[in-house]
Amino acid sequence: MAIAPLDVVGIGNAIVDIIAHADDAFIARQGMTKGAMTLIDAARAEEVYAAMGPGLEMSGGSAGNTIAGVALLGGSAGYIGKVRDDQLGAVFRHDLTSLGVRFTTAPLTSGLPTARSMILVTPDAERTMHTFLGACVELGPEDVDPALIRDAQVTYLEGYLYDPPRAQEAFGRAAEIAHSAGRRVSLSLSDPFCVGRHRQAFRSFIAGHVDVLFANEVEILSLFETDDLAVALDAVSSLCAIAAVTRGAKGSVVVTPAERVEVPAAPVARVVDTTGAGDLYAAGFLHGLTTERPLATCARLGGVCAAEVISHYGARPEASLKDLVKDLVAHAA
Amino acid sequence: MAIAPLDVVGIGNAIVDIIAHADDAFIARQGMTKGAMTLIDAARAEEVYAAMGPGLEMSGGSAGNTIAGVALLGGSAGYIGKVRDDQLGAVFRHDLTSLGVRFTTAPLTSGLPTARSMILVTPDAERTMHTFLGACVELGPEDVDPALIRDAQVTYLEGYLYDPPRAQEAFGRAAEIAHSAGRRVSLSLSDPFCVGRHRQAFRSFIAGHVDVLFANEVEILSLFETDDLAVALDAVSSLCAIAAVTRGAKGSVVVTPAERVEVPAAPVARVVDTTGAGDLYAAGFLHGLTTERPLATCARLGGVCAAEVISHYGARPEASLKDLVKDLVAHAA
Repeated sequence: MAIAPLDVVGIGNAIVDIIAHADDAFIARQGMTKGAMTLIDAARAEEVYAAMGPGLEMSGGSAGNTIAGVALLGGSAGYIGKVRDDQLGAVFRHDLTSLGVRFTTAPLTSGLPTARSMILVTPDAERTMHTFLGACVELGPEDVDPALIRDAQVTYLEGYLYDPPRAQEAFGRAAEIAHSAGRRVSLSLSDPFCVGRHRQAFRSFIAGHVDVLFANEVEILSLFETDDLAVALDAVSSLCAIAAVTRGAKGSVVVTPAERVEVPAAPVARVVDTTGAGDLYAAGFLHGLTTERPLATCARLGGVCAAEVISHYGARPEASLKDLVKDLVAHAA
Repeated sequence: MAIAPLDVVGIGNAIVDIIAHADDAFIARQGMTKGAMTLIDAARAEEVYAAMGPGLEMSGGSAGNTIAGVALLGGSAGYIGKVRDDQLGAVFRHDLTSLGVRFTTAPLTSGLPTARSMILVTPDAERTMHTFLGACVELGPEDVDPALIRDAQVTYLEGYLYDPPRAQEAFGRAAEIAHSAGRRVSLSLSDPFCVGRHRQAFRSFIAGHVDVLFANEVEILSLFETDDLAVALDAVSSLCAIAAVTRGAKGSVVVTPAERVEVPAAPVARVVDTTGAGDLYAAGFLHGLTTERPLATCARLGGVCAAEVISHYGARPEASLKDLVKDLVAHAA
């Protein structure tokens, strides 16, 4: 197997986030499911935007956030995702390419606009997301650049890609290319409701294709339809080589067929906005994995990156991740 | 004179900010004037954007920030400014109208896009701005809605409006309408380089039309071409009824022909990004003025609002300004 010029290539819904404060009364009045990602159409997007307060806009998208994190940690990365050739699309593209990320997916030149997710952050730092997928629904297998996939040690897929119709095909195609090049495939389960929508498809994809799985506690419980974490961890260890399960303030647990590694959460002075916590955990973990650190170090790297991103608004890091993980990487080397 | 249904109407360059970290080496390498607002064309805007790191986008524009502040303080406000009917224009409009601001200026339907300002924040919290005015250059006197101006106690103009060609005419027309309706006219000097570009025009406009002037120390010194603040304060007190001069960490001084009121700066735990400090000072001050507080309270209100906005990225407030000024307003009532 050839040496990989890239550490990680991500495939995901290319989304610009519109982040605003909201109180619980607003969430209730709008009939929103607090803490979840809800898919909405253009008309409902207009309605939610009109009702919500002033926003701040930042590039987002689950895999996009992870890839930005990998690049900020000093890793080399690529991205595949669909924007429109509009202003938000230009913002999304800039925010990855300016980090050195290889992102060459052709934008739509007509039709739906770049996707946006309206993220309402309540005073408890929980985020409730309403996503209009826009151009993302046009992502298909023809957008999967085989050379890019073959170039990366790990191909990372966000579970949210099961929602737009043709992205699942892109998903399958990417996994095949990666494996036939001797590379690893990683998947994040994204959201408990997303797991609910696609449970069987996820299980069979994981069994057939996934080497490294990311999930939080609620997602992994939903995947195996159990309320017992031990049962879910046993089940997942028989499906894939590595599963990293995040547990919020309780840290994370990494499961392989041979071992279980528990790591505490990194300290956070004040949790401001939990958006991107899972995405940045995956970034830290994958950076560790692609630089051949032990699993415990991978999990700790994930924890530090997640702690950074929840300490401020927005799902992309503000501080220098490289500085934050310096000691961790030096000790584990 | 009829009771004013609105407290303040602002006229300004309608701009979306793109905020990014940069170090001093980047500012130097790009040949930028640190701390200043530099006007750039579309080609240079592409160049700067390509060179800078990932951004966060937030509505900005000097008067836009002030008007958002007035609305967040519980005041009633209107805005006049030119966007294009594009995505950034929709963001700018939403971020004011969602605060209850009356903003009905027709957008451009062709031609230049909505203005953007690339704001590079260095580790010392100083901001260096590069602004592509885009649609703003089309603002003209026909955009000044006489009913809106007549409805407001104070018409607030940003000095930056002296840069786009036809905005000066809009400026003059708004001042005439306001004064013939018995309303007050307020001006912010915006930027020392802007003062340098338009010194004589500013002086005669202030003498002829301005009731309430906002400036920082550097701007007021530049206006009167002196390096002695006492000289500048004397000079300004003979030109207009009220001048509020901000002095950063030294607080502010309010000058009238009859008195001088000095007020210390409000405490700030950590200065993160000074963008919008002057704009939010004006918001607090004008809120005090339009609710008939003494000048010292107006200046203190300005200081509290400025302190909030420099404690985080972006020139629009994050925290509830109403809560922050509650005690100040209660004591002064």
